[in-house]
Amino acid sequence: MAPLKQFLMIPGPTPIPTEILAAMNHEMIGHRGPGFSKILGEVIDGLKWAYQTKNDIMVYPCSGTGGMETAVVNTLSSGDKALFVNIGNFGDRWVKIAKAYGVAVIDLKFEPGKAADPKVLEAELAKDSNKEIKAIFMQQNETSTGVINDVKALAEVAHKSHPEALVLVDAVSGLLAADLKTDAWGLDVVVSGSQKAFMVPPGIAAVSMSKKAWSFYEKSTLPKHYWDIKNQKKFADKGQTYTTPPEPLIFGMHKSIEILKKEGLENIFKRHELNKLIVRAAFKALGLRMLADDAGASPAVTAVFPPEGIDAEKVRSEIRNRFGVELAPGQGEFKGKLFRIGHLGYVDKLELVATIGALELIFSQMGAKIEIGKGVKAALEQIK
Amino acid sequence: MAPLKQFLMIPGPTPIPTEILAAMNHEMIGHRGPGFSKILGEVIDGLKWAYQTKNDIMVYPCSGTGGMETAVVNTLSSGDKALFVNIGNFGDRWVKIAKAYGVAVIDLKFEPGKAADPKVLEAELAKDSNKEIKAIFMQQNETSTGVINDVKALAEVAHKSHPEALVLVDAVSGLLAADLKTDAWGLDVVVSGSQKAFMVPPGIAAVSMSKKAWSFYEKSTLPKHYWDIKNQKKFADKGQTYTTPPEPLIFGMHKSIEILKKEGLENIFKRHELNKLIVRAAFKALGLRMLADDAGASPAVTAVFPPEGIDAEKVRSEIRNRFGVELAPGQGEFKGKLFRIGHLGYVDKLELVATIGALELIFSQMGAKIEIGKGVKAALEQIK
Repeated sequence: MAPLKQFLMIPGPTPIPTEILAAMNHEMIGHRGPGFSKILGEVIDGLKWAYQTKNDIMVYPCSGTGGMETAVVNTLSSGDKALFVNIGNFGDRWVKIAKAYGVAVIDLKFEPGKAADPKVLEAELAKDSNKEIKAIFMQQNETSTGVINDVKALAEVAHKSHPEALVLVDAVSGLLAADLKTDAWGLDVVVSGSQKAFMVPPGIAAVSMSKKAWSFYEKSTLPKHYWDIKNQKKFADKGQTYTTPPEPLIFGMHKSIEILKKEGLENIFKRHELNKLIVRAAFKALGLRMLADDAGASPAVTAVFPPEGIDAEKVRSEIRNRFGVELAPGQGEFKGKLFRIGHLGYVDKLELVATIGALELIFSQMGAKIEIGKGVKAALEQIK
Repeated sequence: MAPLKQFLMIPGPTPIPTEILAAMNHEMIGHRGPGFSKILGEVIDGLKWAYQTKNDIMVYPCSGTGGMETAVVNTLSSGDKALFVNIGNFGDRWVKIAKAYGVAVIDLKFEPGKAADPKVLEAELAKDSNKEIKAIFMQQNETSTGVINDVKALAEVAHKSHPEALVLVDAVSGLLAADLKTDAWGLDVVVSGSQKAFMVPPGIAAVSMSKKAWSFYEKSTLPKHYWDIKNQKKFADKGQTYTTPPEPLIFGMHKSIEILKKEGLENIFKRHELNKLIVRAAFKALGLRMLADDAGASPAVTAVFPPEGIDAEKVRSEIRNRFGVELAPGQGEFKGKLFRIGHLGYVDKLELVATIGALELIFSQMGAKIEIGKGVKAALEQIK
């Protein structure tokens, strides 16, 4: 029997609360009129709250990758040297974008499953004694491996070694899942997306710009039109977007911010932290290997290897077909070797408990020596 | 931290699938025009599929109780003798309605938690040697105790003993959760509601009328206007309802029937049967007492006593506040003594697994000697 209900346990898009779906289900309004301006203004204020910043924030009709491209083309010029703290697939993606525009990339790769070591970054930056590196890019959370970086420590190292350089952060999957203090940590450009902890469908990216980032914009010669952030700011100042905005997503973000503000930043972080602890306690109890160690474990997504001899893709298709649970596949070198369970946004602790139960059953039926209920017990015991 | 997500585990209203919510989210259309007529006609055809009947079916803007009243006022006259097979609160309700209209009620009560014994009905009917009993009323499923009646056997007894009498069934919470063959079993009037296995919000009741039931209508003198079913049929024949219909609910029923037809009656019954088995296996593994025994156990709802010394209402508030799980309270004499878990409609097997996990944790933290994970294991093992 095909499952009637879906449990979307991927690291974005996350499930969408009914209140947000309902808010999106609004007739179109004039996007150059005062009604829309008020809503967009409140969305941008809400983004500033989430970013913990007073910097400008611009929104774009695009996916998170568009926001990453925006960060590159508005700050650099061809031949500029930039360092990419790279802990996985989304690190690779930013490198690819930069290379496509002729940026001189230093690709500082770390072992998959590990967070970037600030000491390694420090040593790498120290090599650049002429201070040619103009920008340091990093992921807050690497979705492909389930690892969270210590952005605060990395930014500190960057500022100390290269005070003139920009620090740019891809916070698409990390924002709101974990603390990110844009201003206090001196993050010049921060990119986020609607489809993660905001619990809104994909289609909007937000990009913040510090004063320093704006000064880089003035010198940047990379070609840009759609992504031109000064142009976007000109419209944002009028409560508009340059191109026609995806209105339902703006309505959704508006409702999302209302819901999230009520919950409060600390509670949102705690909620995601608990989800991480639930999943990790369960997988440890079942003797499964996770790609990330405890230190770098992401509050948004966990990558885990199935028991010995069990095919990760088989697990994904079984749990989809029998339980309606959608898990994410391994990426890159881990394709087919592991699966990932998203636990950010509108994914609930109890859905994680249920998913662990379903995994136990599937593992056991596939021949693994799994004690059904053991992972669930460990998961439940994380809930005080 | 207040839960962000709700798990509605009550015996109706059940959760609503997004597709149905989306279908309801439609602008209003003229309810006397051809567009609405087509939709209503298809809804009535779908209801006939669900009822397994060729009888007329009329829909009313009202809750299930309105359907129960419709069944009474359109078939009987003041002073008419009618027997009510009564296994719980909704049996009591039908008795109350009938008494309010001056029907001479024979209230055949059974012990709570037990299905009606056809032999007891047979004996009771045998006492009425003059065949004065004109109608026999019964619940298919009694929501207050979590018991399902053997409607087929009860109807057989009724037909054999009193072939002239009507058989009227309240199938509000039972229709689609378990097999109900309106025509094959000779059920003259069957009442259902939108908010149960149809997975549509409350607000619509449907009432079927056999030819025999129509012949009773002609002799019935009970006062009626809103419930007048011949008047309602006159409008139904034009693809309309007598009064202004709650359009979103009609749109929702239309989508529901499309979804359910794809699943098929047998699969729908199996899905509910599995939910029952999951819940019962778990509660048995935890040593909990259920009000219904296996023979009469409802596929739609299970009433269960918490472990010794634990307050049922405390369990309900804890699981609501900490997990967002909404359970139903005990009714009547069981108020505060037990709670009920709804598992019909858009309640998923995996949500039941999760709810059992949450209950285990709560019971354990309240001091019960519960082995966390044991109920979940038993539940999972029901899923082949």
